Amino acid sequence: MNSDSRFVIVGLGLLGGAYALGLRKAGFQHVAAIDISEEALDFARRRDYIEEGRARDFADLLARADYIVFSLYPTTFIQWVEQYGQFLRPGCLCTDVSGVKLGLVDRVQALLPAGVEFIASHPMAGKERSGVENAHLVDFAPANFLITPTERNTEAGVAFARQLAQALGFARVHVISPAEHDRMIGYVSQLTHAIAVSLMCAPGAERFADYTGDSFRDLTRIASLNDAMWAELFLWNREYLTEEIDAFTARLQQLKGCLERGEREALREMFRTSTAARAAFDRKEREG
Amino acid sequence: MNSDSRFVIVGLGLLGGAYALGLRKAGFQHVAAIDISEEALDFARRRDYIEEGRARDFADLLARADYIVFSLYPTTFIQWVEQYGQFLRPGCLCTDVSGVKLGLVDRVQALLPAGVEFIASHPMAGKERSGVENAHLVDFAPANFLITPTERNTEAGVAFARQLAQALGFARVHVISPAEHDRMIGYVSQLTHAIAVSLMCAPGAERFADYTGDSFRDLTRIASLNDAMWAELFLWNREYLTEEIDAFTARLQQLKGCLERGEREALREMFRTSTAARAAFDRKEREG
Repeated sequence: MNSDSRFVIVGLGLLGGAYALGLRKAGFQHVAAIDISEEALDFARRRDYIEEGRARDFADLLARADYIVFSLYPTTFIQWVEQYGQFLRPGCLCTDVSGVKLGLVDRVQALLPAGVEFIASHPMAGKERSGVENAHLVDFAPANFLITPTERNTEAGVAFARQLAQALGFARVHVISPAEHDRMIGYVSQLTHAIAVSLMCAPGAERFADYTGDSFRDLTRIASLNDAMWAELFLWNREYLTEEIDAFTARLQQLKGCLERGEREALREMFRTSTAARAAFDRKEREG
Repeated sequence: MNSDSRFVIVGLGLLGGAYALGLRKAGFQHVAAIDISEEALDFARRRDYIEEGRARDFADLLARADYIVFSLYPTTFIQWVEQYGQFLRPGCLCTDVSGVKLGLVDRVQALLPAGVEFIASHPMAGKERSGVENAHLVDFAPANFLITPTERNTEAGVAFARQLAQALGFARVHVISPAEHDRMIGYVSQLTHAIAVSLMCAPGAERFADYTGDSFRDLTRIASLNDAMWAELFLWNREYLTEEIDAFTARLQQLKGCLERGEREALREMFRTSTAARAAFDRKEREG
């Protein structure tokens, strides 16, 4: 990866835009984008996020690309690769930004032409807003960058993903399997969003705005989400997510059982467990 | 309420200490405290939070008091009133800081001598830490102060609670019934704590510290809690809290059902509902 490298971003939304901007800031001259929206491309050209943008007739852009970043919803991503994957040239290295991996990575790898390596990755740096016009608000520095290789990936592929993360300013890079990734995301991100949505869907929840403190505000901040994208992510990861919902519900029912039976000591034990786990979490995060 | 008024704080923990400090800052000279811990009393005396403190032989303090603030756990509060309520003089006005009201307020009012008015209130200004040594960290200004009168209360009683809130610097004062209070607290505060505890009690939750973003951190911050106090609050409010847990669980199961049946549009509808409710909540809070 050097200053002559040619990047193509496929899908110029919030993260695609943030990647383009980040790559330009890191000194890469040749960053192009493909998107169905001329408006998004115009915005990115005007702001100098990209050197070139196309909504159609982009085969030559793909044929010249050294590195491609797919920043599409999973379902669209697969459709795109089915239709245009043939235009990628052997030697080209690709990655993505998808929040789910299992099932997706294998399929994309199987669809791409021989000699084109797809190394999946996931920048955990979302925002409540979407769109390239909000791309400058994305902050990669404190976020995790997860690389999820399969047995089809090479060391060069993983090295590319690491270099990309470094160029974009991610301080934390981890390599884990697609299955570990999806299980972890099911718990850490999707379950928490499912909880926030369920909390905020209470009839008349907003009438309590007068009384709420920080805890309610904190727990429901992420109840404001991009419905199309999150429906994608939830449905792609439904097995792990439903498992996590079941496990969480069982723990909440355990707590409710203690309440109903008036088991003060058992309740206190749960509270001590959560307090200790949260302290361990804080320690690990500080050391991390 | 004037600068000669005599206050007694019963229970010198985090909130009792914050009340003592707040009253002194507001210019009240005569703030005394009763607590079983000589250490807590010593701390408050040294910092000039209180003029006088007693662990025993406090009948004369009570007999002279114009205003009493009970800052005890609900169960201890009732035991205390049963034992020492007889020493309060007619004309004395009392309040508390308890996070539950139904069942508690009635009993305390019934136990106190004739002529002693108890007007219940709840400063929604907790901290993750406890103890008088952390009292200076409590910030009343942005918090809600809830006054929960019953039919036994007078206008003078409610006016006292309002004056107290003003003296302590609360910007937001609301008057609601004990039942409304407990239902609201069950949802806004206790359900959110039950959720955070259940999330954080996942086996090995801390192992995900490497990967978490703001959402997990936000949702589990309140999983760190004072187990004795929260067991009290949960058990006192168990009817409402179990109702809220059931209602929340039903909404989470509805979401899970959409996942299992692959109902993308129904999922998106839930996400749009929660996004709109959160926006309405933000608007109401800004206007509030």
